[in-house]
Amino acid sequence: MASPSVSSSITARLQVQARPTAVSELTTAIERAGGIVTALDVTASAHEQMTVDVTCATRGEQHAADIVDALRDLHGVVVDRVSDRTFLLHLGGKLSIESKVPLRNRDDLSMAYTPGVARVCEAIAAHPEDARRLTIKRNTIAVVTDGTAVLGLGNIGPLAALPVMEGKAVLFKRFAGIDAFPLVLDTTDVDQIVETVVAIAPAFAGINLEDISAPRCFEIERRLRERLDIPVFHDDQHGTAIVVVAALTNALKVVGKDIATVRIVLSGAGAAGTAVLRLLLAAGARDVVVADVEGVVHAARPGLPKSLRWTAEVTNPRGVTGTIPQALAGADVFVGVSAPDVITAQDVSTMARDAIVFALANPRPEVDPDDAAQYAAVVGTGRSDFANQINNVLAFPGLFRGLLDAQSHQITDRMLLAAAYALASTVSDEELNPAYIVPSVFHPDVAAVVAAAVEREARADAAATA
Amino acid sequence: MASPSVSSSITARLQVQARPTAVSELTTAIERAGGIVTALDVTASAHEQMTVDVTCATRGEQHAADIVDALRDLHGVVVDRVSDRTFLLHLGGKLSIESKVPLRNRDDLSMAYTPGVARVCEAIAAHPEDARRLTIKRNTIAVVTDGTAVLGLGNIGPLAALPVMEGKAVLFKRFAGIDAFPLVLDTTDVDQIVETVVAIAPAFAGINLEDISAPRCFEIERRLRERLDIPVFHDDQHGTAIVVVAALTNALKVVGKDIATVRIVLSGAGAAGTAVLRLLLAAGARDVVVADVEGVVHAARPGLPKSLRWTAEVTNPRGVTGTIPQALAGADVFVGVSAPDVITAQDVSTMARDAIVFALANPRPEVDPDDAAQYAAVVGTGRSDFANQINNVLAFPGLFRGLLDAQSHQITDRMLLAAAYALASTVSDEELNPAYIVPSVFHPDVAAVVAAAVEREARADAAATA
Repeated sequence: MASPSVSSSITARLQVQARPTAVSELTTAIERAGGIVTALDVTASAHEQMTVDVTCATRGEQHAADIVDALRDLHGVVVDRVSDRTFLLHLGGKLSIESKVPLRNRDDLSMAYTPGVARVCEAIAAHPEDARRLTIKRNTIAVVTDGTAVLGLGNIGPLAALPVMEGKAVLFKRFAGIDAFPLVLDTTDVDQIVETVVAIAPAFAGINLEDISAPRCFEIERRLRERLDIPVFHDDQHGTAIVVVAALTNALKVVGKDIATVRIVLSGAGAAGTAVLRLLLAAGARDVVVADVEGVVHAARPGLPKSLRWTAEVTNPRGVTGTIPQALAGADVFVGVSAPDVITAQDVSTMARDAIVFALANPRPEVDPDDAAQYAAVVGTGRSDFANQINNVLAFPGLFRGLLDAQSHQITDRMLLAAAYALASTVSDEELNPAYIVPSVFHPDVAAVVAAAVEREARADAAATA
Repeated sequence: MASPSVSSSITARLQVQARPTAVSELTTAIERAGGIVTALDVTASAHEQMTVDVTCATRGEQHAADIVDALRDLHGVVVDRVSDRTFLLHLGGKLSIESKVPLRNRDDLSMAYTPGVARVCEAIAAHPEDARRLTIKRNTIAVVTDGTAVLGLGNIGPLAALPVMEGKAVLFKRFAGIDAFPLVLDTTDVDQIVETVVAIAPAFAGINLEDISAPRCFEIERRLRERLDIPVFHDDQHGTAIVVVAALTNALKVVGKDIATVRIVLSGAGAAGTAVLRLLLAAGARDVVVADVEGVVHAARPGLPKSLRWTAEVTNPRGVTGTIPQALAGADVFVGVSAPDVITAQDVSTMARDAIVFALANPRPEVDPDDAAQYAAVVGTGRSDFANQINNVLAFPGLFRGLLDAQSHQITDRMLLAAAYALASTVSDEELNPAYIVPSVFHPDVAAVVAAAVEREARADAAATA
């Protein structure tokens, strides 16, 4: 059973009979019902009665309702009102658009708006590259989705996806000082998505695609990269790939193995899986076996879809066939970007000595991380409640910071790889151990280190193609 | 010759020989060259020499260069560096996107982003109207242009239009607390503009179209209003119309005439002219004569374009023909939303007693306002350096504030008219006089008064159609 989570916190306002045991009765009732009290305030008091606000973490909506029922059952307690802390946080949306210039009087107005602004417009009309100096294009990216593959929720549509995209924009600001604006598109047509993003592109210095379902996401990204002169990055693909390669780089250091010689089994051939594969190969991996729900991918697999032909060509040098558990025997590395419970601890036990297991399906991983750790030397997940959280937040803020600082017109695999190695480097040799192969998302240096490496690579790329 | 303007201010950093007359020599030189000194700071001083920053308003770039030359010619003065205050203000763009939620630790992250955000997404998927409560849609509008009719600069394209759209967003925030984001479109195709705005609409509670050339703007607005369930408002049309009707309401009060009986001549049949006409008719005007560059519009005019047929039908009840000056004879009101110097003071002298002249072409009006004032009782322009500035900033912030507060799905002529009358009402009977028919854009009550009237009308409209 999952632990209570702050993300499902409730605050209940209670009227309580004033007696010595009043508060302890409340906390005991909540704890007996399985909640965790995180805050308790007496907000008003009289001789006979007190008003108490109590906040507690729960396991979800049903559990929250059970806890409220337990409080209601207490003698002398009246439940006034229950609020959900997460919903309170989202009220009114999570972003605001602020003016950076003062408008105190007519003089200010005449410079920020007409007539003064006309000279700025004319300067940009004459020298379009000045837009990077004189407009928000300098530091602004779009977070674009069509709402077809949102978190684990699937195709919930653009409006319901908006809270996630706002959250993404909050992360861009918090971790890299980037102004990101969410655009949630009321279309799932590939042509129309491409045309829309091309049409809105002028004000932006980069496009972050988000939560667009595979295989549509591949074509959308490819066509946008062809059409636009700003970097286009699908985070579900490449953000994951960067963090996996960074984590693998450090995990291999822990066990003393070389990426060029290890056997890697990759579960998942969708958006994330394909991008992880590309970047693993770019990083020097030579023996990767990819599997999807139908089993191991190889050229002779009956009914192999067209989209997996490239995968079949560039992977599986030893001609492995069969299921994921079969492929795992003797493998050094398992990377799962697929689904819950794809493998068992028993399967992990058949891997090579000092095995590495990254089980990134979220919230339920490909294998229970505690079980896997019985046999593997290094285990990572996508969850925050286990060691080695492999989280895109480690990659995308710094990556875009570097791209913007370099005023890059594109994004290349070399830049992604530079980001991965820079991220790996934020864990020093002294810090490195099996339970610390990637830094915390709140590590203060991560974004700056990743940004510097990406900016260097982007400037070198621009110089080489100039 | 135009007066020096703060919108063309420069700041020059000078090295000056330290002598008693040093500062007065500088200010004298600037004033002789026609500049106006607005600030002077000695930023460093030694026995022999001082560093002086002097800021002055100029008449434009050539004039600024002349002033710098005059400073350079002074004995013992070295010009270090000259900066343009307007360009400094625009550096890096005028907007930032800020997070409204804290992200201090993992608990914050778990509520603002995964896993907590998923519950908010699910709530919106189940009840789409909750997006107005739980996302930025509540308070966010898009400022959309294709850059085809920007200020007086014409078709300068989307990128060069961006400083104006950012400025507009700054005004929305400053005057009505609205989060407005600029979308500058890399297409001038009507179909593609419509499809793009429909695609990006979900995150927004309103669309402000801006600086899109006529007649394309009419079709774009009409089709977007049909397709979207949020208000769509082309400011160049309706913003102007609201402010003109507000100003005319008060001007007629000053001269004691009735809109139902006055003769009105309207110069301009483009975006603004057409919208002004519609709203004048909605406000009760019965005798409007419209003219464009070809002269007075009437059904029998040879080669009358299709786009003016409606205008010919609903105007000109007395069958006037000929030129604007001919139409002006005996007219009570002239409204110009057209081009410089369309009429002369002599033409104004032929108007009826207590004539009203609104010459709104900017920066050069249809008639010199000082000349017009010799014969007209009330004169208004679009400029800030004359009395009665008829400026859209008086209308659009409050209008959208009211629409957002009512969560309106559309915008109607009744709402525009409500905005106009509310705006007029912000000038009290005690304040009203020929030089004060509209308030200053910095009048603290304007947006709130307009918003309240529009919200009331929008709620009534929603109730009537529910």
